[in-house]
Amino acid sequence: MIGVEFASVWRSFGADVHVVEALDHLVPAEDLAVSKALERAFRKRGIGFTLGDRFASLSETDSGVRMTLESGKALDAEVLLVAVGRGPRTAGLGFEEQGVRLDRGFVVVDERLHTGVGNVYATGDIVPGLQLAHRGFAQGIYVAEQIAGLEPAPIDETGIPRVTYSDPEVASVGLTEQAARERFGADAVETLDYSLAGNGRSKILATQGFVKLVRRTDGPVVGVHLVGARVGELVGEAQLIVNWEAHPEDVAALVHAHPTQNEALGEAHLALAGKPLHAHN
Amino acid sequence: MIGVEFASVWRSFGADVHVVEALDHLVPAEDLAVSKALERAFRKRGIGFTLGDRFASLSETDSGVRMTLESGKALDAEVLLVAVGRGPRTAGLGFEEQGVRLDRGFVVVDERLHTGVGNVYATGDIVPGLQLAHRGFAQGIYVAEQIAGLEPAPIDETGIPRVTYSDPEVASVGLTEQAARERFGADAVETLDYSLAGNGRSKILATQGFVKLVRRTDGPVVGVHLVGARVGELVGEAQLIVNWEAHPEDVAALVHAHPTQNEALGEAHLALAGKPLHAHN
Repeated sequence: MIGVEFASVWRSFGADVHVVEALDHLVPAEDLAVSKALERAFRKRGIGFTLGDRFASLSETDSGVRMTLESGKALDAEVLLVAVGRGPRTAGLGFEEQGVRLDRGFVVVDERLHTGVGNVYATGDIVPGLQLAHRGFAQGIYVAEQIAGLEPAPIDETGIPRVTYSDPEVASVGLTEQAARERFGADAVETLDYSLAGNGRSKILATQGFVKLVRRTDGPVVGVHLVGARVGELVGEAQLIVNWEAHPEDVAALVHAHPTQNEALGEAHLALAGKPLHAHN
Repeated sequence: MIGVEFASVWRSFGADVHVVEALDHLVPAEDLAVSKALERAFRKRGIGFTLGDRFASLSETDSGVRMTLESGKALDAEVLLVAVGRGPRTAGLGFEEQGVRLDRGFVVVDERLHTGVGNVYATGDIVPGLQLAHRGFAQGIYVAEQIAGLEPAPIDETGIPRVTYSDPEVASVGLTEQAARERFGADAVETLDYSLAGNGRSKILATQGFVKLVRRTDGPVVGVHLVGARVGELVGEAQLIVNWEAHPEDVAALVHAHPTQNEALGEAHLALAGKPLHAHN
């Protein structure tokens, strides 16, 4: 995620960029359709990438660095950016001496973010899970409310929206299609892709992408996946839909403003509810 | 609304623009705070306006036109744009001969959009109310569903989002503060203004503006009013909140993505629920 953000911005500055991803796709935590769309978009922008291969060794060259991958493939570059996420910096702070359990540097907590020691809680990137600022905000509020005796409901991490600030943007909330099929059964899930080609405001922005909805068959929408310029702003509505367990019909009944990008969300729900309005594929 | 859109775009093209508005404020159907914010923004952009005055007469001059207002004030311009909304074009189409009632050219219908004549319904701008494309879409769907025997619920016009595509944008859904006080009682309404000065993504866009929430005291949010760049995309989430009669606490409990503009909606609901997070005024 951080890797594709930096690849995107450096490409925008005019640099030649090549992304090495150990897993099989870019943004591998996202829905597969999103990863494939981002890969297409990056290819169009001239951003190279190598998937399913790993770093093996590095050497300095006259012009920069040479990286060799496990496959034997070699890549030459002026600069190497290591963007594999952030690691916890918890060593030497006295946590273990107080009885706080650590796992590879991360603080082990229960669903209430309690360490099991006295009144000691942990929040933010030292707690395993999504390394996102707004998750940290929410965890901080949640712990403060517990200490104040308010008994807040634990945070459901699948309900936290995720945005990758690349060009195009990627945004999602809830379950991917694959995760939904694993959780509810392979035949108990329906999906719908709505192309931004049918969305006037996206045409104006000259962006491509889609809205992908994942629902339980005859049940609520459990995942919304977005690719395209500015879609990070659409995830606000998407997260209400997923967290409030709306059915497609609940959203389809409401009128979205025209011409906006958010009407693509409305149109996707109309289509999933069986009454498509504007569709262009 | 159309007038300020054209004033805005022509100013962007470099023209000197002056808006004449018969009512007391620009976008007079919007919440008063929104009108005042747009007036401040237009003033900063060098867009002139005259409020609370009306067209009296027009004459051609060597360089264009001279318009005289009822107050006696005269305005000289190269071009005059009349942007007072669209009128119905229903004359001579045989409506009245069939027994369809017209009122100043508009088609009179009941809440089911039925004309009272046989299987004749009316939709879109010839029906009195908001002259918006997406209202027309929704009415078309609604009538088709009725004819198909699906018995859909009538459309609540206050739940239809409204966007003015000026710079800055204006967007709203639900009741203004004034309308809410008239409907529920002057003391039965609470409001909250959240400045976009506290929103990182809006800082990046160098835009100013706010989110204004109107709620029934201890009750649901009944109006959301937005000013600022791109806020037309935030009204998608806002319309779910208003139409689903969410309480501020329902929204405050959910985590918005950082840094987005839509987190300003989250922060506004956090503040209205009594637990502000980031605030800058």
